[in-house]
Amino acid sequence: MVVIQTPTVLLDWGIVRTNIDRMVSKAKANGLRLRPHLKTAQCMEIANYFLSNGVHHFTCSSFSMASYFTEGGVKDITVAFPVNVLEHELINRLASQIRLNILAVNSESLKALRRDLKKTVGVFIKIDVGTHRTGLLPTDEAGIEACLQEIASSECMKFKGFLAHAGHSYTEKNQEEILSVHKQSTTVLKELRLKYQPCFPALELSVGDTPTCSVVQNGWEGIDEIRPGNFVFYDLMQVAIGSCQMENIGTALACPVVALHPDRLEAIVYGGGIHLSKDRMMWQGREVFGLPVELTAAGWKLPEAGNYVRSLSQEHGVLHCTPDFFAKLKIGGLVGVIPVHSCMMVDIAEEYLLTTGERWEKLKG
Amino acid sequence: MVVIQTPTVLLDWGIVRTNIDRMVSKAKANGLRLRPHLKTAQCMEIANYFLSNGVHHFTCSSFSMASYFTEGGVKDITVAFPVNVLEHELINRLASQIRLNILAVNSESLKALRRDLKKTVGVFIKIDVGTHRTGLLPTDEAGIEACLQEIASSECMKFKGFLAHAGHSYTEKNQEEILSVHKQSTTVLKELRLKYQPCFPALELSVGDTPTCSVVQNGWEGIDEIRPGNFVFYDLMQVAIGSCQMENIGTALACPVVALHPDRLEAIVYGGGIHLSKDRMMWQGREVFGLPVELTAAGWKLPEAGNYVRSLSQEHGVLHCTPDFFAKLKIGGLVGVIPVHSCMMVDIAEEYLLTTGERWEKLKG
Repeated sequence: MVVIQTPTVLLDWGIVRTNIDRMVSKAKANGLRLRPHLKTAQCMEIANYFLSNGVHHFTCSSFSMASYFTEGGVKDITVAFPVNVLEHELINRLASQIRLNILAVNSESLKALRRDLKKTVGVFIKIDVGTHRTGLLPTDEAGIEACLQEIASSECMKFKGFLAHAGHSYTEKNQEEILSVHKQSTTVLKELRLKYQPCFPALELSVGDTPTCSVVQNGWEGIDEIRPGNFVFYDLMQVAIGSCQMENIGTALACPVVALHPDRLEAIVYGGGIHLSKDRMMWQGREVFGLPVELTAAGWKLPEAGNYVRSLSQEHGVLHCTPDFFAKLKIGGLVGVIPVHSCMMVDIAEEYLLTTGERWEKLKG
Repeated sequence: MVVIQTPTVLLDWGIVRTNIDRMVSKAKANGLRLRPHLKTAQCMEIANYFLSNGVHHFTCSSFSMASYFTEGGVKDITVAFPVNVLEHELINRLASQIRLNILAVNSESLKALRRDLKKTVGVFIKIDVGTHRTGLLPTDEAGIEACLQEIASSECMKFKGFLAHAGHSYTEKNQEEILSVHKQSTTVLKELRLKYQPCFPALELSVGDTPTCSVVQNGWEGIDEIRPGNFVFYDLMQVAIGSCQMENIGTALACPVVALHPDRLEAIVYGGGIHLSKDRMMWQGREVFGLPVELTAAGWKLPEAGNYVRSLSQEHGVLHCTPDFFAKLKIGGLVGVIPVHSCMMVDIAEEYLLTTGERWEKLKG
């Protein structure tokens, strides 16, 4: 492997490509449009791989992210975040370059945007299928109709359909619970479709979160599009809820080892909260910020039980190790860390170091 | 205030300057060298203000951060992070440009570095005064002497003294406990000085953390230098432990409001974990990720009880509000968020928007 001097995000393209291929095949087999969420990888090289596999529709979480991919040649983007009307200039610019869809969670935003919108955008209405973060409740007829009214009153807005993110699938504990979230949330959307289809025969249903898209094999009838994002890399949270196996995780942080404390079997690495993010989770009965792994010439080994990232400060990571694992570490060497939440870890990186040695630029969050 | 379209780090220079002036005066009154830690602000404009007030010695947490400030004209930097020997090329480059001090937490790093070091650096030995993150225990005579031995064997290393960071002051609950941490940790250092001063008459003692540097008025006898960092901005954690008052916090995140949910008195803002970081804390009996505040033409108001950031995802912030506060929010408007941990929040920003409208570039973490 090439020389690493500072905390560096590694990407195992063999694993990532397999994750992508699997989702592309699943979408194809189920007659679904795959509109992958690019907020995880934030990397044009990865978008290009999707493009070369016939995937031409994408999801972003901000208009600035959509700009980056538009510059890279992407032509169809849904910004799946409640539309921020303060960015109307950028929205107009993007809408003049690509097919842009925005997300409405209330009619007030659409009313405000209507004044400034000069180019055509598609509008998805976001439905709160149970996560209770945001979106219109499926029972909120007045809210939905107020949105449809604003869309109808605008020359530049075109109603596309209903969109949901079953974010509560992230708090489920196993595949059965994920399946139940999927069933409940898609049922809600399908009822909405039945109701509004007479007026909007072409309306689409878009869902997307990595747990349900990973776990649900069939059961996609009536859904038009899926928007998973995290699946390209996966992470410990996804392993814990059953979306994937540890060997499907496609990214790790390579960290220089700067101190060893044999009395407490702890290693200090250069790799802290600004590199890994402060996301944490329960893992085998402990709160962890990641799992240390041995780096190899080809990438990294799977984690061994008993090793975990105990705490993070701004630049320091504190690894608690088994005697065996500890014995392999040396000051001036490197160790890998498997992230709790890959999206947050990679966000701040400006490039990926592939395990083959290649470097891929990415958007720095 | 100028137009804000996306999550933007605000800086109230009146508050920040007062925080700086107060620490400069305290250091002067106590005959201490102030060597402020620049990892909080990461901004040359702020370093320049220190320089114009006679402060010429600085602390950084990485060699890349030290590079940024070296390019800006800073001439004396201690990198207060266990030396990462993999960066020896950068260390040599910096040492040829400025007076550079590095931090040793073990003799192995010094041994490895000795091979590659071509320019003179000062070396502080880091003592673990009770935080148990890293550093040599004050009782570890063999470890300390092994470091001194490596320093003596190198033509390019010069022993500067002992350095400590009483990070455990962050877990204290009030000023009295902070004072007790200060007393205990400085006593440890002073005992070390007594022991090693016969061989190294010029050895210095360097301490530094915002809680003790803010709270301790006198009681600095025998200490040469302080290295607080967070005090330039402060944050909710510092208010909670008694380092400062709410009105001393000099930074907030301005966030566009994208959705309002009156049924649960919750507002959704564009401003998530990638903007605020996932640092959280207990505040008035609840776990919070920040406190919402009303923005004004001149900056922001103080938080009102009952309002808090309940959760964060990658870009979404969920604010729970009192009816009064909620009534003031509007979609397409802005709201401020006071951070739990300012260092982590500002790290990813590439500039500060001053409440006067000026913009200051900063190092993006």
